[in-house]
Amino acid sequence: MSEAVRTPQVIIDDAEIFAAHEGGKLSVELKSPLDTQRALSIAYTPGVAQVSRAIATDHTLAAKYTWANRLVAVISDGTAVLGLGDIGPAASLPVMEGKSALFKTFGGLDSIPIVLDTKDPDEIVETVIRLRPTFGAVNLEDISAPRCFEVERRLIEALDCPVMHDDQHGTAIVVLAALLGATKVLERDMHTLKLVIAGAGAAGVACANILLAAGVRDVIVLDSKGIVHSGRDDMNPFKVELAGRTNPRGLTGGLAQALDGADVFMGLSAGLVPEELIATMAPGGIVFAMSNPDPEIHPDVARRHAAVVATGRSDFPNQINNVLAFPGVFRGALDAGARRITERMKVAAAEAIFSVVGDDLAVDHIVPSALDPRVGPAVAAAVAAASED
Amino acid sequence: MSEAVRTPQVIIDDAEIFAAHEGGKLSVELKSPLDTQRALSIAYTPGVAQVSRAIATDHTLAAKYTWANRLVAVISDGTAVLGLGDIGPAASLPVMEGKSALFKTFGGLDSIPIVLDTKDPDEIVETVIRLRPTFGAVNLEDISAPRCFEVERRLIEALDCPVMHDDQHGTAIVVLAALLGATKVLERDMHTLKLVIAGAGAAGVACANILLAAGVRDVIVLDSKGIVHSGRDDMNPFKVELAGRTNPRGLTGGLAQALDGADVFMGLSAGLVPEELIATMAPGGIVFAMSNPDPEIHPDVARRHAAVVATGRSDFPNQINNVLAFPGVFRGALDAGARRITERMKVAAAEAIFSVVGDDLAVDHIVPSALDPRVGPAVAAAVAAASED
Repeated sequence: MSEAVRTPQVIIDDAEIFAAHEGGKLSVELKSPLDTQRALSIAYTPGVAQVSRAIATDHTLAAKYTWANRLVAVISDGTAVLGLGDIGPAASLPVMEGKSALFKTFGGLDSIPIVLDTKDPDEIVETVIRLRPTFGAVNLEDISAPRCFEVERRLIEALDCPVMHDDQHGTAIVVLAALLGATKVLERDMHTLKLVIAGAGAAGVACANILLAAGVRDVIVLDSKGIVHSGRDDMNPFKVELAGRTNPRGLTGGLAQALDGADVFMGLSAGLVPEELIATMAPGGIVFAMSNPDPEIHPDVARRHAAVVATGRSDFPNQINNVLAFPGVFRGALDAGARRITERMKVAAAEAIFSVVGDDLAVDHIVPSALDPRVGPAVAAAVAAASED
Repeated sequence: MSEAVRTPQVIIDDAEIFAAHEGGKLSVELKSPLDTQRALSIAYTPGVAQVSRAIATDHTLAAKYTWANRLVAVISDGTAVLGLGDIGPAASLPVMEGKSALFKTFGGLDSIPIVLDTKDPDEIVETVIRLRPTFGAVNLEDISAPRCFEVERRLIEALDCPVMHDDQHGTAIVVLAALLGATKVLERDMHTLKLVIAGAGAAGVACANILLAAGVRDVIVLDSKGIVHSGRDDMNPFKVELAGRTNPRGLTGGLAQALDGADVFMGLSAGLVPEELIATMAPGGIVFAMSNPDPEIHPDVARRHAAVVATGRSDFPNQINNVLAFPGVFRGALDAGARRITERMKVAAAEAIFSVVGDDLAVDHIVPSALDPRVGPAVAAAVAAASED
């Protein structure tokens, strides 16, 4: 493993960031040039008419003779962008362009950012359905909870192609991979962990779901008002449902009550957690402080009390970043011609990410580097195989 | 001028055309690679948050720090594709990909094909409005008349960016450029021409409009039922309006009545025209037989009766092809930051195309080659200048 990844202290000033974004980060290129009359006659009129005629006769040929079948639409309404909140579609676009850049680099997939000037779930769903012939898969991005649950569910039902809200499932996949790494290096049994998730938004709910599915039994989720439990009357239907499946010890209260004696803390809330509370966790615990750009607790502080510490940032060890998951997940689904991204495919993706760590597993290396070129292909192969089972 | 352009006899078999279309003709690429932790931290988290934050504070910064401001959306519902008709959005996609390839090659512009699974004008307009933050200009393509007139008008009203239906105005611009060339080489006065347009669809109506604006006084338009004139009761509102501005001699009947003694025939109808009718035109006339892939009359036959003959095909002289217009028109409008593509900008585009022919003007060279790299920049500069006037 390179020194640069072990100690990635990257100092970048704003001027460099803005300069790198001038004119955007993407371009649309031709697979072969249109510099001769012959090339023009093939790619455009009259040649292209043959291809259009063939697809009109047999619609399945569109998969072979256009880019759409393997094109990912990265779709956002800009309501829950990074840790910045509802900043609108225009301001979300640099993130979506970055996402497309990651799809290409780590999944070898073409994708286009589509940002919508509506927050209405009906309108978002309707618009994406109308765009269907344009793409072959939908990556929903940075759409706020609880609308994101409904939008994703309805699009999965309506479309005959892979649809995934990355903030939910990309995060959940990488969190599960990281927990596989952390429990392995600490020789802990995942089933007996007391696990606390701060944040009941898109990522928090999806993480709870995948961890429960993976066999973690004692999961407590908190929102801004405290522990999600069945005695509360201030919760939306998604949280009510979640309360029925979590918090088996029936705790009430806030973070102090939840963290007391807990083995794992997962921060997905953008709220700070004081050191005193982390200090009340059981010894030898696990802290994933994943908010960006500011972790819930500084990893150096968390390490005083926890055996494994991870963040979402590239400049600390153990970066829990969705880029480990989504490029390979979509690539695998498209390679297999899958119409759905199933729970089974997500767990297979997490196991594939964990498997890449291999003999390099250590308390400061529970997940592969975001730049590790082995991850995308490993995830794609695992997801495709799980799809075909 | 190269031999290849003068005699472009291109023979291409279907196998070569289909092979060239496998997987589509476009790809999305990164402007700079994401191969280091530093690059990732700039283009994605945490660096990108700075850019998103800045745009959230000042929306005008999206123009500088994303690709959207100069991105053209090539939008179609697949209802009037080439000469193939209503073949649907999936089958239209190879044409839209080709269009994007032409935008890049001749205008240096990024663009994305968007094909819609709806033919309803309300839904098309509504969808494009919702997509607004995604792009910086709209090229409507292959949407059938008369819906295309309403869709274009409503989008021009609703959006604060350039919108143009290329089948209308791209065609009209190149036709005007070709007529400037033909009248110059024949030393004819455009104002006194008797001019017949066969076809009252998107292209026919737009050509009539630009030619009337350019000073041609005697324009007769025909649809499938004959000459468009005020005495008919079988016309849609667009044709009724057109009848009021054309046919100053008040002719009735069909192509035989219209062509008798005419100076110019423009075919935009996909219908064949018999040699006997072309023979009734005034001597030394002009024939633009622009239907693709089959011209209304074979150019070798038309040349027996007309002094200048043009087609839409690349394998005959005088190819009247929209690619001479749209890349430069959009490039010029975007360079100038124009919110509208005005009639003035369209006429400037036509004059710029004509100007590139220069001293090479001849009866078999009234327009530049579709591959001439001087055309796009000349049109862009003229359009930008006309926008700023």
